[in-house]
Amino acid sequence: MNDIIELMLAHRSIRTYTDEPVPTEDIHAAVEAGQKAATSSNIQTYSIVHVTDAAMREALVSISGGQEKVLDCGAFFVLCADMRRHALLAERCGVPCEENVESFLLSVIDTALFAQNMALAFESMGWGTCYIGGIRNDLQAVQDLLHLPHRVSPLFGMTVGRPAEDPWPRPRFPISMVLQENGVMSDADVLAGCDAYDELMKDYYLKRGASGRTWCGQMERFYEQPKRPHLQAFFESKGIRWR
Amino acid sequence: MNDIIELMLAHRSIRTYTDEPVPTEDIHAAVEAGQKAATSSNIQTYSIVHVTDAAMREALVSISGGQEKVLDCGAFFVLCADMRRHALLAERCGVPCEENVESFLLSVIDTALFAQNMALAFESMGWGTCYIGGIRNDLQAVQDLLHLPHRVSPLFGMTVGRPAEDPWPRPRFPISMVLQENGVMSDADVLAGCDAYDELMKDYYLKRGASGRTWCGQMERFYEQPKRPHLQAFFESKGIRWR
Repeated sequence: MNDIIELMLAHRSIRTYTDEPVPTEDIHAAVEAGQKAATSSNIQTYSIVHVTDAAMREALVSISGGQEKVLDCGAFFVLCADMRRHALLAERCGVPCEENVESFLLSVIDTALFAQNMALAFESMGWGTCYIGGIRNDLQAVQDLLHLPHRVSPLFGMTVGRPAEDPWPRPRFPISMVLQENGVMSDADVLAGCDAYDELMKDYYLKRGASGRTWCGQMERFYEQPKRPHLQAFFESKGIRWR
Repeated sequence: MNDIIELMLAHRSIRTYTDEPVPTEDIHAAVEAGQKAATSSNIQTYSIVHVTDAAMREALVSISGGQEKVLDCGAFFVLCADMRRHALLAERCGVPCEENVESFLLSVIDTALFAQNMALAFESMGWGTCYIGGIRNDLQAVQDLLHLPHRVSPLFGMTVGRPAEDPWPRPRFPISMVLQENGVMSDADVLAGCDAYDELMKDYYLKRGASGRTWCGQMERFYEQPKRPHLQAFFESKGIRWR
């Protein structure tokens, strides 16, 4: 155990913040730490929009399904997969820039590795963070709001601020559920493991005042309906061909 | 600046390792730190296969395009997007598990956030790491080798080991290229920024004995041909519907 692992183990998403703003030097330190994360072949296919405009923040609250923390946090960022540099360079020398599932994967993974370094860097300076997948409720609206050009695709947001809450840490799976050697467990063991995890989660749900809830119950219907089905067309409009 | 940000800023991918094995307690510490990364709605849609079998490692060298470090490193992991738990739970209660671009994004982002915590945790214990996107040269072969069931999709590998090299750190974009306020820069500024970055990279390429190389030159043809075009069909075979 060391300070860094201790910081990771102490992580809880923070959803309530004081009104303390996040100083520019902390933002720069976190972004520069983010940039040092691995990036495939140094492609660096991401951009971050720091949203400081109050009207834009209010619009993003609404897009994200009424998440007031997007307005109330100390700093709000929209993290984007950014293929524009590659596309402009290719255009300048007259060659195509072919985007497909692989290029999509590369830019999403690049952006996520960047974001996780950035989140940890903020947490190491005493700030709380929360990823905001809710902006994917309407990526077209996010694009219009931030005037994002072709090949720049918003993926998720991140709230940062001084924590004004001290939430219970949410237990994760026992390590045996995620780490296996030279293969993976049987379907029967997966189901038994999920049921065992429900036992582990009982206490957490109880503390959160949701005593009837189970993880299995939440998850079994999580994908009953296709989620955000507009995304396929949105990313196509940004230049990605799935086929 | 603190220890954690310092660790991130010192990151270089390590591609040559001593033959020192990585102890199980370090692997468990890194995986548990990985599990504490944010995960959307606590879905935890990932699994990690620790590949210890020498024949499997040799096969993975070949799949990854001859990357000997996959065999020579202290520990090798295949990181998978894992939708099987959700699919089995849904099946058990007789509801569909609809996978699409959003579910794909959720599992890829979850896996990447997990992986970045894991990589940093290893680095904090003095190990070097390198992401291995090369396994995506043939995901069907990876799946067959590791007997991965339906809904478990390999995404990338990770080598871990005691560094036997001390590579030059690769400069990233100036922060002004990736962080913007309430919008993004113009196309002209993007191109000017890429050209300016080439100046910054000259010294790095020179030190690496590749003095003619430029970042723009590498990137303008990076997507000239569609990369790994089999991926779309592979992920479809794992249950994802793009439409």
